[in-house]
Amino acid sequence: MVDMSRLCTVHIGTSTRAGRIDGDDIVILDAADVGDVLRAGGEVAETGEAIPRETARLAPVVTAPDKVVCVGVNYLDHIEEMGRDRPSAPTYFAKFANSLIGATDDLVLPPVEVSTHIDWEVELAIVIGSPVRHASPREALAAVAGYTVMNDGSVRDFQRRTTQFLAGKMFEGLSPLGPVLVGVDELGDGSGLKIRSEVDGVVKQQSSTSELCFNVVDIVQDLSAITTLMPGDVIATGTPGGVGAARTPPEWLTDGAVLRCSIEGIGATENRCVLP
Amino acid sequence: MVDMSRLCTVHIGTSTRAGRIDGDDIVILDAADVGDVLRAGGEVAETGEAIPRETARLAPVVTAPDKVVCVGVNYLDHIEEMGRDRPSAPTYFAKFANSLIGATDDLVLPPVEVSTHIDWEVELAIVIGSPVRHASPREALAAVAGYTVMNDGSVRDFQRRTTQFLAGKMFEGLSPLGPVLVGVDELGDGSGLKIRSEVDGVVKQQSSTSELCFNVVDIVQDLSAITTLMPGDVIATGTPGGVGAARTPPEWLTDGAVLRCSIEGIGATENRCVLP
Repeated sequence: MVDMSRLCTVHIGTSTRAGRIDGDDIVILDAADVGDVLRAGGEVAETGEAIPRETARLAPVVTAPDKVVCVGVNYLDHIEEMGRDRPSAPTYFAKFANSLIGATDDLVLPPVEVSTHIDWEVELAIVIGSPVRHASPREALAAVAGYTVMNDGSVRDFQRRTTQFLAGKMFEGLSPLGPVLVGVDELGDGSGLKIRSEVDGVVKQQSSTSELCFNVVDIVQDLSAITTLMPGDVIATGTPGGVGAARTPPEWLTDGAVLRCSIEGIGATENRCVLP
Repeated sequence: MVDMSRLCTVHIGTSTRAGRIDGDDIVILDAADVGDVLRAGGEVAETGEAIPRETARLAPVVTAPDKVVCVGVNYLDHIEEMGRDRPSAPTYFAKFANSLIGATDDLVLPPVEVSTHIDWEVELAIVIGSPVRHASPREALAAVAGYTVMNDGSVRDFQRRTTQFLAGKMFEGLSPLGPVLVGVDELGDGSGLKIRSEVDGVVKQQSSTSELCFNVVDIVQDLSAITTLMPGDVIATGTPGGVGAARTPPEWLTDGAVLRCSIEGIGATENRCVLP
């Protein structure tokens, strides 16, 4: 079984391969992405090939999750800035696989005639490692492979045109996922990690994953009552205060802006925004 | 290219195969499901095998769509019974592939300690045939392969515990999709079709797809501004009045109940509800 403490997915030619972080190198694995490594229970071979981490082009850690579930209104400071009440249950919405991009890919904005209200939301993303249904708290954490960083790219005018967020959340290619999957052996239940977003070097969001209303175990346990979570499923746990929509005046991502989303112990996504 | 006017997906052993309806028979195709037939642009061979339609066990028409998008509050009579205003834009929420079951599979209810508020919603489901982004109305309809029937299985207490419907909509195995995909050559833009649900032979919902606020072309065009729709993507267009939650007293699906959802020109799903 491959050492699964730090995994990534890299573009190689026109396809992708999973990789294991080994110092400054990425050791290429015989699997298309980290999702496939998890589905195989880590029973994948190394190809013998390695590439320098510096020059690797990262793909989304999981390229085609069966499910991408996001939790909304889950940091107390963000709940306050959006003018919402403290929730009694987790608020879920979805994305689809083609919402995801790699940790350093260009973030291609929608055409300006569709929307200019493109916002950032740094989030701790859970990646599921083994199938789980009707989990106890202990089973919930045991089903988690580890964590990565997601920008929950949000198009605010579409998000707010009806009661349901999905239209503003499922836009193609606005949600970097990466750079690496860091295992539960290292990060435990994912609490106590500094989380931050920056636009052009200016800090926009800064908090700790200890500020989550519903923590990792709560969320996995609750979702597992609804559906079987499967290896490679991605669950983004919500974003702290400081989003563009809540600023005065509101701020949006524009052509040329660089969005950096980082979480202590995992690393950062850093994506340049470009117009199509 | 295979005749794509009436396609289905059948369970064969522990896997699935696409099939072409040929009178009382299903001609088995060299593809895992209708999604794969569409992704291949219909360029799949017949295997030479055929099975009687009567004895075939149907799988979801598309077993693993990249996206399942549902439109809420889209029939005027349902909007009235749920006490909502007429919408100015389509309301979208999601399901995932494991929400889907075949047209005659058992509909396995959640354990009663999770929820007993299981409701029906018969819907015309669009199946996308070719990739489409930023579509004109003409391009929108050209991207549609055809239509099938979906029950948008809904767990009302979970749907209503927060602002976002997803928790009540993504339950595993509550959403039959079938029995067959009927092509645009036969059904055009999907308007003017009688649509009905029955529980134990009693009609619960009865309307026409002409009552849609946002029609098939509107929905595909609008979604294509947000993301690239891909072959096999499923879009459920909303449900007419008569759902269980809006009845006095409310009615729910219970152990042993038979739910039949039918649309003129397509056929019916008929699923027996069972406890796990």
